[in-house]
Amino acid sequence: MSHTPDPDFAERVRASFALQSAMDLIKATLSTVEHGHVAIHLPHWSGVEQQHGFVHGGVVGMIADSAAGYAAMTMVPASASVLTVEYKMNLLAPAGGEHLLARGRVIRPGRTLIVTQAEVLAVQDGRETLCALMQQTIMVMHGKSEKG
Amino acid sequence: MSHTPDPDFAERVRASFALQSAMDLIKATLSTVEHGHVAIHLPHWSGVEQQHGFVHGGVVGMIADSAAGYAAMTMVPASASVLTVEYKMNLLAPAGGEHLLARGRVIRPGRTLIVTQAEVLAVQDGRETLCALMQQTIMVMHGKSEKG
Amino acid sequence: MSHTPDPDFAERVRASFALQSAMDLIKATLSTVEHGHVAIHLPHWSGVEQQHGFVHGGVVGMIADSAAGYAAMTMVPASASVLTVEYKMNLLAPAGGEHLLARGRVIRPGRTLIVTQAEVLAVQDGRETLCALMQQTIMVMHGKSEKG
Amino acid sequence: MSHTPDPDFAERVRASFALQSAMDLIKATLSTVEHGHVAIHLPHWSGVEQQHGFVHGGVVGMIADSAAGYAAMTMVPASASVLTVEYKMNLLAPAGGEHLLARGRVIRPGRTLIVTQAEVLAVQDGRETLCALMQQTIMVMHGKSEKG
Repeated sequence: MSHTPDPDFAERVRASFALQSAMDLIKATLSTVEHGHVAIHLPHWSGVEQQHGFVHGGVVGMIADSAAGYAAMTMVPASASVLTVEYKMNLLAPAGGEHLLARGRVIRPGRTLIVTQAEVLAVQDGRETLCALMQQTIMVMHGKSEKG
Repeated sequence: MSHTPDPDFAERVRASFALQSAMDLIKATLSTVEHGHVAIHLPHWSGVEQQHGFVHGGVVGMIADSAAGYAAMTMVPASASVLTVEYKMNLLAPAGGEHLLARGRVIRPGRTLIVTQAEVLAVQDGRETLCALMQQTIMVMHGKSEKG
Repeated sequence: MSHTPDPDFAERVRASFALQSAMDLIKATLSTVEHGHVAIHLPHWSGVEQQHGFVHGGVVGMIADSAAGYAAMTMVPASASVLTVEYKMNLLAPAGGEHLLARGRVIRPGRTLIVTQAEVLAVQDGRETLCALMQQTIMVMHGKSEKG
Repeated sequence: MSHTPDPDFAERVRASFALQSAMDLIKATLSTVEHGHVAIHLPHWSGVEQQHGFVHGGVVGMIADSAAGYAAMTMVPASASVLTVEYKMNLLAPAGGEHLLARGRVIRPGRTLIVTQAEVLAVQDGRETLCALMQQTIMVMHGKSEKG
């Protein structure tokens, strides 16, 4: 897609992420920002739990959605922004462990739509358990940079 | 489905909701608990925003997922609990407004699987804008009560 | 959306449908074409069955996808065409009965994307059973008419 | 999951497939049946086309749904059958080419639910183009064999 890839994509992604209060609220941080691939780290802390002590499925969805959306953002021009059109997520196992890692990647970059995928891993003592799988559609808003 | 409906379903739903730290974290509250229908209220406050001042799509997903999941829970026996298998959500409009209202309802109750739907409305000056539509599959865990 | 609605939308939909060999192959026909709403009729015949004598889930998906996609097409200008971006479908009950009826409708019309919904009913002796529910995203291709 | 894997899974899958009139109608054939992985081949012929000469998206969905469902079936006991609960599919590119190949694989096998994924490739002169990506939930019906 991007004929003129933006060399500063990582900086743009980090600046946008820093402005998301909701990511701060749940204590999520960016752990990887590469071309077509972004990972988000979430510590397992009491504030994000559901009634059984696992991380709430909605919070799992938040980091999956964000990781995949930012993966898409790494592939658009600096003058464009991205928007989640829709996503579908299967919860595969309870989100336990010490922290979660959401890994988003671009499956098909298009000029207007980008299709992505994310997996969320629960990590305990270095062992990873796949706890969610997401498929997502992102829209590219050309001429509307994130910084507006 | 439920041949012996649980007369105390609303109490069970409220007790479970009260144990979800994640709902407390985002300041979500239960506004309606009826048989097959649950609504969740979320004030629009700075902590749940994304970078443009709207409520984060992931937070919209959290309340949609929960409203629909609890709608399912109103239809299962007291001795059972519910689990989100998967959901798919379209974001239809930016989640602005003074508060959001997520309305979940059961489409098809089954013994093992319950299919639900949720819509999320952004409310401003009494005017509602549909900002998300979700379709969800819930699994019923018989013999595993929420308090278990 | 459509500020200049196309008065001939029904004719366009019928002409496009007539060109789809795949609809002919399964013996599907258009039964309703209204603004924002299209219904497709499928007789239950041996050629569309799966191994248990019900209509194949994939065929149920075909008519749901088409009904919703054509519902979207009724709301775009004559100079545009539509494309399925994605859909998600829950199969709720075996597709038995004498015939199926897929009803698609537009939930949110946008200039570039249209979100739709479809339900598929199995009809037996005039009694309808909901057997599938679908949520779909359609892309509008401006300047690319169906006949183009 | 499967503590007593069925050594005859391939035979069961082939027998079930042979009974699906709908697969015969579109001229789809099984090309691979391995543990956790099934591929379906569809020649591109006029009967499965939409109005622009590509394979109809609904037909793409049929083979994706079937490939993933049969992939799940390879992992259940001989005394069980499988049922599609739901699937979500993104159409990524027009389904052109000489034939399509739908590859389904199991992501997470569970006793009651199996989560799968399928990709559909359009093949032309040995070159493959990814034209669809699907995520699916399958239910295992214990004690109800396919032949039952």
